[in-house]
Amino acid sequence: MRKLLEVEIFDKRSSDPKERNWKYEDVLVVGQPAQISLQKLAPPQSKFVILNTSGEIELFTSTEQTLSMQIPLVLEHLPEINLLSRTFSDRIKDRFLQVSFQDENRHQLSQIQLNLTVVRVCLDVDADRDGIIEEDNPHKADWQWGSNGHGAVLLVNSDRDIVYSNEETDGEERLIKSLLDLKDFSLIIVRKAGLRDLPSGYDFYLSVNKDIAKRIRIYDELDRDGYELIGPGRTSAKIRDTDRDILLAIEGLSYPDVDFDGLVEITLSLVKDEKYLYSDRVIFKVAPWIMTPNTLSPIEVFVSRLSNGVNKEFIEELRKVVGKANAQLDIIPFELHQDDRWMQDEIEIGYAQAPGHLMYVVFDSPRDRGLVDFPKTKLLGIDFGYVTRKSRYEATKLDSFGNLEVSPPVTVKGVHYPFGRLIFGGTRKEIIFQPRRMLKVLRDFLYAQKIQAPFEIFSDWLSVGHIDEFMTFVPAPTPKGFKLLLASTNQFYNILKSLQQQGHGCVLLRQGKRFSRGPADISVSDVLDDEKLTEDNHRFQEYIDWNREVLKQELDLGEEDIIELPALFEKDKDERAETFSPNMVNMIVLKQHLGIPKPSGPKIDNQCQFEAYVKEVLEPLGLICHFIDDWEPYFLGRGEIHCGTNVRRQPFTQKWWEVEPAFL
Amino acid sequence: MRKLLEVEIFDKRSSDPKERNWKYEDVLVVGQPAQISLQKLAPPQSKFVILNTSGEIELFTSTEQTLSMQIPLVLEHLPEINLLSRTFSDRIKDRFLQVSFQDENRHQLSQIQLNLTVVRVCLDVDADRDGIIEEDNPHKADWQWGSNGHGAVLLVNSDRDIVYSNEETDGEERLIKSLLDLKDFSLIIVRKAGLRDLPSGYDFYLSVNKDIAKRIRIYDELDRDGYELIGPGRTSAKIRDTDRDILLAIEGLSYPDVDFDGLVEITLSLVKDEKYLYSDRVIFKVAPWIMTPNTLSPIEVFVSRLSNGVNKEFIEELRKVVGKANAQLDIIPFELHQDDRWMQDEIEIGYAQAPGHLMYVVFDSPRDRGLVDFPKTKLLGIDFGYVTRKSRYEATKLDSFGNLEVSPPVTVKGVHYPFGRLIFGGTRKEIIFQPRRMLKVLRDFLYAQKIQAPFEIFSDWLSVGHIDEFMTFVPAPTPKGFKLLLASTNQFYNILKSLQQQGHGCVLLRQGKRFSRGPADISVSDVLDDEKLTEDNHRFQEYIDWNREVLKQELDLGEEDIIELPALFEKDKDERAETFSPNMVNMIVLKQHLGIPKPSGPKIDNQCQFEAYVKEVLEPLGLICHFIDDWEPYFLGRGEIHCGTNVRRQPFTQKWWEVEPAFL
Repeated sequence: MRKLLEVEIFDKRSSDPKERNWKYEDVLVVGQPAQISLQKLAPPQSKFVILNTSGEIELFTSTEQTLSMQIPLVLEHLPEINLLSRTFSDRIKDRFLQVSFQDENRHQLSQIQLNLTVVRVCLDVDADRDGIIEEDNPHKADWQWGSNGHGAVLLVNSDRDIVYSNEETDGEERLIKSLLDLKDFSLIIVRKAGLRDLPSGYDFYLSVNKDIAKRIRIYDELDRDGYELIGPGRTSAKIRDTDRDILLAIEGLSYPDVDFDGLVEITLSLVKDEKYLYSDRVIFKVAPWIMTPNTLSPIEVFVSRLSNGVNKEFIEELRKVVGKANAQLDIIPFELHQDDRWMQDEIEIGYAQAPGHLMYVVFDSPRDRGLVDFPKTKLLGIDFGYVTRKSRYEATKLDSFGNLEVSPPVTVKGVHYPFGRLIFGGTRKEIIFQPRRMLKVLRDFLYAQKIQAPFEIFSDWLSVGHIDEFMTFVPAPTPKGFKLLLASTNQFYNILKSLQQQGHGCVLLRQGKRFSRGPADISVSDVLDDEKLTEDNHRFQEYIDWNREVLKQELDLGEEDIIELPALFEKDKDERAETFSPNMVNMIVLKQHLGIPKPSGPKIDNQCQFEAYVKEVLEPLGLICHFIDDWEPYFLGRGEIHCGTNVRRQPFTQKWWEVEPAFL
Repeated sequence: MRKLLEVEIFDKRSSDPKERNWKYEDVLVVGQPAQISLQKLAPPQSKFVILNTSGEIELFTSTEQTLSMQIPLVLEHLPEINLLSRTFSDRIKDRFLQVSFQDENRHQLSQIQLNLTVVRVCLDVDADRDGIIEEDNPHKADWQWGSNGHGAVLLVNSDRDIVYSNEETDGEERLIKSLLDLKDFSLIIVRKAGLRDLPSGYDFYLSVNKDIAKRIRIYDELDRDGYELIGPGRTSAKIRDTDRDILLAIEGLSYPDVDFDGLVEITLSLVKDEKYLYSDRVIFKVAPWIMTPNTLSPIEVFVSRLSNGVNKEFIEELRKVVGKANAQLDIIPFELHQDDRWMQDEIEIGYAQAPGHLMYVVFDSPRDRGLVDFPKTKLLGIDFGYVTRKSRYEATKLDSFGNLEVSPPVTVKGVHYPFGRLIFGGTRKEIIFQPRRMLKVLRDFLYAQKIQAPFEIFSDWLSVGHIDEFMTFVPAPTPKGFKLLLASTNQFYNILKSLQQQGHGCVLLRQGKRFSRGPADISVSDVLDDEKLTEDNHRFQEYIDWNREVLKQELDLGEEDIIELPALFEKDKDERAETFSPNMVNMIVLKQHLGIPKPSGPKIDNQCQFEAYVKEVLEPLGLICHFIDDWEPYFLGRGEIHCGTNVRRQPFTQKWWEVEPAFL
């Protein structure tokens, strides 16, 4: 509690009674109690004190007893008094407190008059997350997760509402130039009323600490262009004089990361002569970046149209599948991809959300090949934000976002993850020569978002090193709501062996397909007879099985939640795995419609046995398999449909701030 | 459903087979089926038709059977076909439909090729009222009340975010000048994707009907200043070419009224050569103006500080009561009221709400005395809107807003009014000479807001003619949550008679008070002995009782819901009632704290018997009575505390669009 009249007045004492009367003045804040030590003010010989007030001032003892006015009180029983005003002054010094000290004979020893001006000021935010800034929410300075939680939410203003801006994203501007820009801001109200000007020497300051100043910008004068009050390098600013509420706009500049938990505390202080007399505080939390799993409805599918026409047919096939899923196919022209077909790898499309505001946000991989300009040129725009992380280390293939997926919502050992869990691929040093791992800056970013509790699995055994080469999730009408699909070399061999036993050993795989080195045809028996290949795939199956165990544990999956799709790999010069034939698990999942790489498997009665197997295991789940030939445009480039596409999906309906904090 | 190929081609027929092939082109909208009449296109002798498509086109029969391609179909069975594309074109004419007609010998008679370009466009609003504009909500063109209802909400942009503007409220601007202004708008998205330019001759237009154009403004180019696309006098505008979504901002200009139900329908159309090929529609409803009853918490109390200092003491007393209620007292200086003390009469403070946005709105009475500039100069501002209604008829005293109140929420004959009911005073022609009534423009406005189902009672029997002279509502811990307080001349006489019987006939009322004509003291017996006064008050009691019956019916009140407070009136020269002494029912209600006119009643043992009576009936309800002397500054001016103050209160927590429509 603030202490008033902490003044040295004893040395001014005089025998002249006129000189024993002192007048002081001070400024109080509505609703904020202050304390006066009577004992410190009392002259020697004081026995009684008489209190008197004018105007709306309440006086209490330290035990909150209301004090009587204008009658002698025993000083000994009243070491200090508390005073409180509940309403603001409409005039300077419109109220006062008089304290008179008397000796035991009731002779007045001295009298102090404290003239008071009371100001109303309050820093307000949307602490209850309904989109409306309420007045003085008691929880405004505190963040709490959950549907009954509190604490305001701040978006990183990472979209680009000003299409012709020179700056890359809005957060790099120092003026708010566009009307639309404001809608990505959260608002803060400095609620002022009454006097336009404070008594001389008193000011209100808004401030944040130095670390936070790098993470935000706060703007004033929104009735004109909006200029920066606080931001990187400016931790504090004087609040202009006005008798009206002041609306400030705040934008986030940084997503949570290893050095930033996303919490932004802002303080409004009453200051006199650089002394802080009173402070009011609010807190924001920066909205995290959230990924969308395959179980959410697709809105838009992106694919590069290659300049040599090699994926023309593929695009038309894909377009039909996308249409059936009631999504849109957005075909990216050459200028934006320079024949980089790996749309999955350059970006991951997620979103950020604040009350009443949703912004898609593309996370741009540091991979930076032909599609390097695509996210900023095409995606970044109104309500489409952009975030990236760069490292001084060079990116490897594990930094492509085919190596980053998110599970559907799961409950693991009693802990619910309503937004699913992020999964990315790493290495196992003990078994990989020259191991690769996703860059620390990427991993740090993913973990710092918190809400999708990431975990790392093992993808470095693959030449390309992406987890989408051996796993995906599909929706399923089960209690869990999904199945995990895993590539399985065992299944591949099982089908081939069964065909051989039925006398189909001569049937060809990859029939009619060509590598640049020549025809790709190979018979069932030739595959089965290749002992080196069998041995390598036994090893690759072990790696998949290791991941299978991790996934079962981290997502709490049972055997019944996993479906294996036949797949075969060949080892490269580093003993890592490359696909032997189009790898079906590397599919695009659009609601129940699956766009699956046509596997070029052995045909019996003109029916590909791999396709037949996959339909047999997936169709009972209500899934519809569309096999699309991606041999030329994708498989030969060492990727498949999933690698060549990207999907913007509906966000979760649940708000991230409503999750219960069990896992946070 | 749109019909394609409605062309006259028969006259072009020729014996030269090359001339029997025709090519056409058209534009389809994603997801919008179109129909082709094969019978109309078929040359005579046609027996079979062969259909062929390229690109993502689906063909159906009229019974939604998928059609087979490239095989002869019997024309007779296929009078028409429907076609549908679910995805947009990334190139002009990227798909086609071929229709070939054959005679019974399978000789081709003619072939028509329809080259198609498919565009994605969709008009979107926040139809589910969560603050976020979703994609293509199926209910976006329909308004439905209720918590499971739908339909977007529009605020009347009646506040003034631009403080230095020359215009009076923001809605009078034709450019969006201020960043802050945008937050009062609702947003509309024209969702476009794919081709930047439509094929030549095709355009998208946005339009509203002529009546609606007067009620709204729609702005484009929000990335700059925002210019008016549609507004008064501009019913239609071309949508600019872009391959990105276009954000438009819409503001309401008019509250619902007798000639405007608040519904705003907006249409986006694909137009070729002034022909409308396809339309998408959205609907908004303008947020009504809502009043706040005495049961809602006070935030701010307004009072004029009179220049002669006559209400200085009153203000300090009032300030203490306001402080106890944790509200703020905002004291209005002379410049804004020119010594007009009747703060209640000039304005009524309500609010308007849209998802994620709340705006206080002052309804300015056409009374227009000294406080005429106060609402626009002081209240109108950021998030504080303004509305008024003017009439060519002169305002009477019944047009002051002391004559307009709102009940707490009530349920009447099974119908719930969660926002209470508006109550205003009118006349009863059969008993009043030269009757007065609230202006029709005011009544129309009140009824048109709908949500608070107004009703009219009888106040014209009072000289000042305001309902606050005989009624108010106070919170109470009862199932209904409130009590109706009514002035009662019977109670006044009862107390006096009882005093006389106890031998206190000589005790004075209005003791020590003065009129300009002299002392106001009068004894209990003198009052009781005044037969004319008794007779008049009997008549006035009848008027109150008539209102009592109406209030009981319209609010479904029982006798137990009503408390009578002693009051006495004198007749003026028109036989109307003027108060005899400070009229307690004309109080300010601030939560449980009541600021009551000190009644100057007869004192026994220094205890005013009117005060004692009122405390006895109100304190058991948890109410705290603060009797404030308003004789000089208000009573002598023919008003009381309620007339001299105004309160801004917390809005209802329930959203108006969530009410069930029983009474609407």
